[in-house]
Amino acid sequence: MTISKISPFAPKSFAKMPRLMGVEIATVASGMKYKNRDDLLLIVFSPGTTVAGVFTKSSTAAISVHLTEKVVEKGHGRCLLVNAGIANAFTGLKGKQSANSIISSLSKISGLPEGSIMMASTGVIGELLDDKIVNTHIENLWNSRGKSNWYQAASAIKTTDTYAKGASQTIEFDGQKVNICGIAKGSGMIAPNMATMLSFIVTDAKIDKPLLQNMLLTINQKSFNSITVDSDTSTNDMVLVAATGSSNVSILSQDIKLNKFISAFQKVMVELAHQIVKDGEGASKFITINVTGAVSDKSAHTIAKTIANSPLVKTAIAGEDANWGRIVMAIGKSAEPVKTDLVTIHIGGILVALNGQKSDLYDELQIEKHIKSDSITIDVDLQMQGGSATVWTCDLTHEYISINADYRS
Amino acid sequence: MTISKISPFAPKSFAKMPRLMGVEIATVASGMKYKNRDDLLLIVFSPGTTVAGVFTKSSTAAISVHLTEKVVEKGHGRCLLVNAGIANAFTGLKGKQSANSIISSLSKISGLPEGSIMMASTGVIGELLDDKIVNTHIENLWNSRGKSNWYQAASAIKTTDTYAKGASQTIEFDGQKVNICGIAKGSGMIAPNMATMLSFIVTDAKIDKPLLQNMLLTINQKSFNSITVDSDTSTNDMVLVAATGSSNVSILSQDIKLNKFISAFQKVMVELAHQIVKDGEGASKFITINVTGAVSDKSAHTIAKTIANSPLVKTAIAGEDANWGRIVMAIGKSAEPVKTDLVTIHIGGILVALNGQKSDLYDELQIEKHIKSDSITIDVDLQMQGGSATVWTCDLTHEYISINADYRS
Repeated sequence: MTISKISPFAPKSFAKMPRLMGVEIATVASGMKYKNRDDLLLIVFSPGTTVAGVFTKSSTAAISVHLTEKVVEKGHGRCLLVNAGIANAFTGLKGKQSANSIISSLSKISGLPEGSIMMASTGVIGELLDDKIVNTHIENLWNSRGKSNWYQAASAIKTTDTYAKGASQTIEFDGQKVNICGIAKGSGMIAPNMATMLSFIVTDAKIDKPLLQNMLLTINQKSFNSITVDSDTSTNDMVLVAATGSSNVSILSQDIKLNKFISAFQKVMVELAHQIVKDGEGASKFITINVTGAVSDKSAHTIAKTIANSPLVKTAIAGEDANWGRIVMAIGKSAEPVKTDLVTIHIGGILVALNGQKSDLYDELQIEKHIKSDSITIDVDLQMQGGSATVWTCDLTHEYISINADYRS
Repeated sequence: MTISKISPFAPKSFAKMPRLMGVEIATVASGMKYKNRDDLLLIVFSPGTTVAGVFTKSSTAAISVHLTEKVVEKGHGRCLLVNAGIANAFTGLKGKQSANSIISSLSKISGLPEGSIMMASTGVIGELLDDKIVNTHIENLWNSRGKSNWYQAASAIKTTDTYAKGASQTIEFDGQKVNICGIAKGSGMIAPNMATMLSFIVTDAKIDKPLLQNMLLTINQKSFNSITVDSDTSTNDMVLVAATGSSNVSILSQDIKLNKFISAFQKVMVELAHQIVKDGEGASKFITINVTGAVSDKSAHTIAKTIANSPLVKTAIAGEDANWGRIVMAIGKSAEPVKTDLVTIHIGGILVALNGQKSDLYDELQIEKHIKSDSITIDVDLQMQGGSATVWTCDLTHEYISINADYRS
């Protein structure tokens, strides 16, 4: 394993997480792939917990994705087992048998129905998860539930992540607190069409499955689905949300409480999404791309993603080079409706191009000053209609190559 | 300008080019962007020359693309002016005026109609081509026609290319020779939806415009449209073919000569396409990706391109790491019909995965030996239907980052 530099965006300390009822965490070290660190995570939810999820759209998705999708379809889940280091994807019948054996073992020890057990794997594709090793840890995991905290949970699911990712929100309704806690892992393969990473979010609000699923889909579009690191899509990725209901506060679809809850939920997901981008493999710059004036929000999103995924845009920013013509290239490449003579571009709030050509006020020194900072903003106004979108990404650096040219060894 | 290493695939010498009647070449150094090298190219064709072309699909295409498209539509062209270093794309009205001024100047000096003059530009997007500078060289260029050779032509259109690219074929029909000569430049932004580079091919066969255009479209799909370096698409790219007819050999659509000609034409275009990939920015490996068993040729092409464009696949190969799971990831990401349990993968002809899982015969040492060579082959058999495609690409290296993080300075 390449020793990679800790991201310059790593938070000084892990997010403060409130105590959230109805959830118990356990982590252990299996030694399967990593030495001296936990790599198995168990999260146990109280009876009645509803679950929602979004999953990778990969046509070669891992067995864990298929199994967990089935649990989420029914809408109730009692626990989640995660392993880091081995994806157990593209492992055929053996991989399926291994996953089933682990779930069966966990069901026997916990007494929970197999159909209530969710599973997530992350790591090298094509490597088989050894159920014999995992199963030797199941009893210990189950008996340790409640002994680990969110930081340990977030640490146990890391692969090339350089820091543990967590976020939380607490809101009050008539003096009653509702908490939302989430963890996530990145950090390559963060695109497109979904989160394409792992994130697990728990709330103690009581929310029925259809509403929880709808909220997740909407907010996912503006958070995990609006980030990208290298345009690659994993076989294993999922975002799961569990609502334990332990706070006794119910959120209903026609509820006056709904907007406040959605706003808090979105803050958690956007914060986790930002943490993933900021820990993108080799990231040295956090880039925000706003596209406005597109023919639709969808079109704006596609254009913003195309800019965000362009290796030439990303390397220019890595090199602190104000080569804004590459943004024009990416806009043109998107295949979305664009009128070149209307395109207006700002970098760091500074006018670069107005109505399809370099601005007369163009001041490269000012732009270079902005590009030397660690947070870059690109605003593209297509001046056609009202469609808009924001996408976050990071730059493409030597460090990305170093990490990925030798990830497995 | 970063001094980049010459590609390890650079040919020992420029291709041998036969004498081709009906075409005259001139090159000069304008000093606009580069020092001590030619950066303007004029190719003059004999009267009656037919022309065909394919152009970038970018919605922010450069003025040179629009102007040349109009000439190609009519089917006859008398000359082509190319400049390297400045793309004159996204330069609005000023860019249009500059291009028109240059064409007008060339028309006056040469006596050729403005509508028969084609133009191509390559270089930094957003920078305006200075017509005053170019126009001071037009007379010299026109008077020097015939004094430069193909090597000088191929050299004058380079940007970050580390070698001049040329290819030729000579075929005989009843003792009468027909020649095809082509040049090209890369070397980033080589994808998708078209050549996304510049290539100019001339034959002395006599071919009418519709047939020439049809041949170009078909062969382009299997050559320039089957290569990719970094998935980015330029605003300026085009492939032009001119048939001067000077050999007095006519190629007709119902002609017994047609297949032989197409075969030679394809050899030239595929060879130029390979040279572009082998000079891809920072390339250290030439990668051939064959996809078979897809539901259609188009589907196979999309899957092969998705593998070829995956940063994770490309960095693994750069690192000589047999991380074949990333090929599975890319297949899954393509959104094309795939049955995971049928997918079979060979690397360098060595079986890696059979029917959706790692082969029992998997021998990593053998695969690593292949990956350490400079030409890598990946064969993916989806075992569904008869669709197949081949795509060529290069790896993603530190050198790519170095070149692109500081291209302009």
